[in-house]
Amino acid sequence: MAGSSIKPTPLLKDELDIVIPTIRNLDFLEMWRPFFEQYHLIIVQDGDPSKTIKVPDGFDYELYNRNDINRILGPKASCISFKDSACRCFGYMVSKKKYIFTIDDDCFVAKDPSGKEINALEQHIKNLLSPSTPFFFNTLYDPYREGADFVRGYPFSLREGVPTAVSHGLWLNIPDYDAPTQLVKPLERNTRYVDAVLTVPKGTLFPMCGMNLAFNRELIGPAMYFGLMGDGQPIGRYDDMWAGWCMKVICDHMGWGVKTGLPYIWHSKASNPFVNLKKEYNGVFWQEEIIPFFQSAVLPKECTSVQKCYVELSKQVKEKLGKIDPYFIKLADAMVTWIEAWNELNSSEGKIAKLPNGAA
Amino acid sequence: MAGSSIKPTPLLKDELDIVIPTIRNLDFLEMWRPFFEQYHLIIVQDGDPSKTIKVPDGFDYELYNRNDINRILGPKASCISFKDSACRCFGYMVSKKKYIFTIDDDCFVAKDPSGKEINALEQHIKNLLSPSTPFFFNTLYDPYREGADFVRGYPFSLREGVPTAVSHGLWLNIPDYDAPTQLVKPLERNTRYVDAVLTVPKGTLFPMCGMNLAFNRELIGPAMYFGLMGDGQPIGRYDDMWAGWCMKVICDHMGWGVKTGLPYIWHSKASNPFVNLKKEYNGVFWQEEIIPFFQSAVLPKECTSVQKCYVELSKQVKEKLGKIDPYFIKLADAMVTWIEAWNELNSSEGKIAKLPNGAA
Repeated sequence: MAGSSIKPTPLLKDELDIVIPTIRNLDFLEMWRPFFEQYHLIIVQDGDPSKTIKVPDGFDYELYNRNDINRILGPKASCISFKDSACRCFGYMVSKKKYIFTIDDDCFVAKDPSGKEINALEQHIKNLLSPSTPFFFNTLYDPYREGADFVRGYPFSLREGVPTAVSHGLWLNIPDYDAPTQLVKPLERNTRYVDAVLTVPKGTLFPMCGMNLAFNRELIGPAMYFGLMGDGQPIGRYDDMWAGWCMKVICDHMGWGVKTGLPYIWHSKASNPFVNLKKEYNGVFWQEEIIPFFQSAVLPKECTSVQKCYVELSKQVKEKLGKIDPYFIKLADAMVTWIEAWNELNSSEGKIAKLPNGAA
Repeated sequence: MAGSSIKPTPLLKDELDIVIPTIRNLDFLEMWRPFFEQYHLIIVQDGDPSKTIKVPDGFDYELYNRNDINRILGPKASCISFKDSACRCFGYMVSKKKYIFTIDDDCFVAKDPSGKEINALEQHIKNLLSPSTPFFFNTLYDPYREGADFVRGYPFSLREGVPTAVSHGLWLNIPDYDAPTQLVKPLERNTRYVDAVLTVPKGTLFPMCGMNLAFNRELIGPAMYFGLMGDGQPIGRYDDMWAGWCMKVICDHMGWGVKTGLPYIWHSKASNPFVNLKKEYNGVFWQEEIIPFFQSAVLPKECTSVQKCYVELSKQVKEKLGKIDPYFIKLADAMVTWIEAWNELNSSEGKIAKLPNGAA
């Protein structure tokens, strides 16, 4: 074990999987090599399963295509979206690790204002391993960060914080805009590096983006369902939003925290706004009713696990959002299927045969 | 009016007063001269009224000492604190302007990371003149800032925002810590410049610091009472916190926004932590009950003005916090007196004789 070529063991090396949904060769991993190389990857191949996805040498990964998903989940595979990056949540389900980091394949390593490459994963881990403060706002942002603390007037009884369930990272270069904003501001780029991490307060919803996201799978995994999107569905590009709304309501109920801010990744390419508009347009007006629904959703005390919370939420979705469109009835059913599949794969007896294509 | 020596008219020049509570000569204004010179100052002299406060030449100001306060308010002067910077709220009351900026006399001009001097007042005005977004969190922070916008998933119906009532600025160098934190971390300095402004979400309380604060007096002025602190009171250093809790509950009720973040000022000197502990110790445990009280405070629909909200809040304070200590009964009465005095000075008939010592 001597010699300078031994790399230091990265944080949570054996407790975290990196989940990547993709339809193309994963050349983008080259840039992430110094940061991801020692971690295990779960690649969820979307679209045509006969296509071969090339993964750069030296990465430790398992890969699932649609055929694998169908084989592993059987009829329950219906809850996993096809032709939409929502399929990534299958990776959360088959992971056996405590933490998940998920990233899009058009996201690259960003630089901080000093020009240093940002180790996004390391920052996410820091966010997840330090507590959150959802019950009172700290004006100097994350009080657990070096050089910061709770300011005058912050209740002492709240200074231990609560467990952090989710770490939501941001994007330099191409901001995560909806199609209408993309169309109106095609040249807008995010160049502002905001050196902050903060807890999204209890009772406040936010738009969770799945591009650069980490979470404690053991705590909140079953709520991280990315819904029914893409092929055969009347909507796309709301997968992460859906997960974000459900997850936040459940975290608020369970007393867990959600952080947003650092780390940044470099988002390289804007997706086509015309294609996006087609995917989004139902969501653009549905969200006007969905968000008030989630803002007023209350989970009963009996919901003492994420699974119970999620099934309860599915009932409320069916009852209250089913009126908007039959899609929500289908979605509510899929939410239940998702939980059943999750429990099957994650119970002690649930070690069903998995034969991934990659080197597991 | 020709010539290059004419300075450009600063934003809201005739609509904003700068309120400064002080016990000493205002040499600190020299550093602020380029930014404050064209505005009107209201100086509230605390402590011994026979002492003369020197104000650097060229500033346009009015100055009130304790004798002035007693003369102008008569018996109602009892609601204005003595020997505590809480006296500053007298300046809010006598102002006739739409906006207030208040700053402590140990605060200097800070520099941004590029080394440029920060015009704190200009940033506060930008914050106050652009809307707030209290109903949903925008992950790219203030969506109205140049280069930013609402992200994907932000409801379109909420993108107009709501009027901004308060702009809460931050501090580089000496952070605003309580006495216990000061004692534990005497050498901690805030060096992190976080380039963000954000809306404190609806339903979330925060510790409002009065050191570097601006607000729309026409909207929220009557709620900006800094309470009974200092001389003859069992508590100090909670003046701004008190105002912040009351103000936030009322803004949430009225549908107005509160922003925090930029601008930074340079806070030069830490106050004495031993003295602070003596002032704060009651607050340290009282706040454990006060904050849940404000978190659950509900104002009835009939409260359609800030004055009505504030009087209603005073009743709830008396009823619910009066149990903690008789101090809160006295404070609740002072809240009512404050509103009476505010109305007297700010009604159309209320132009009572004022004879400030300075050049008004």
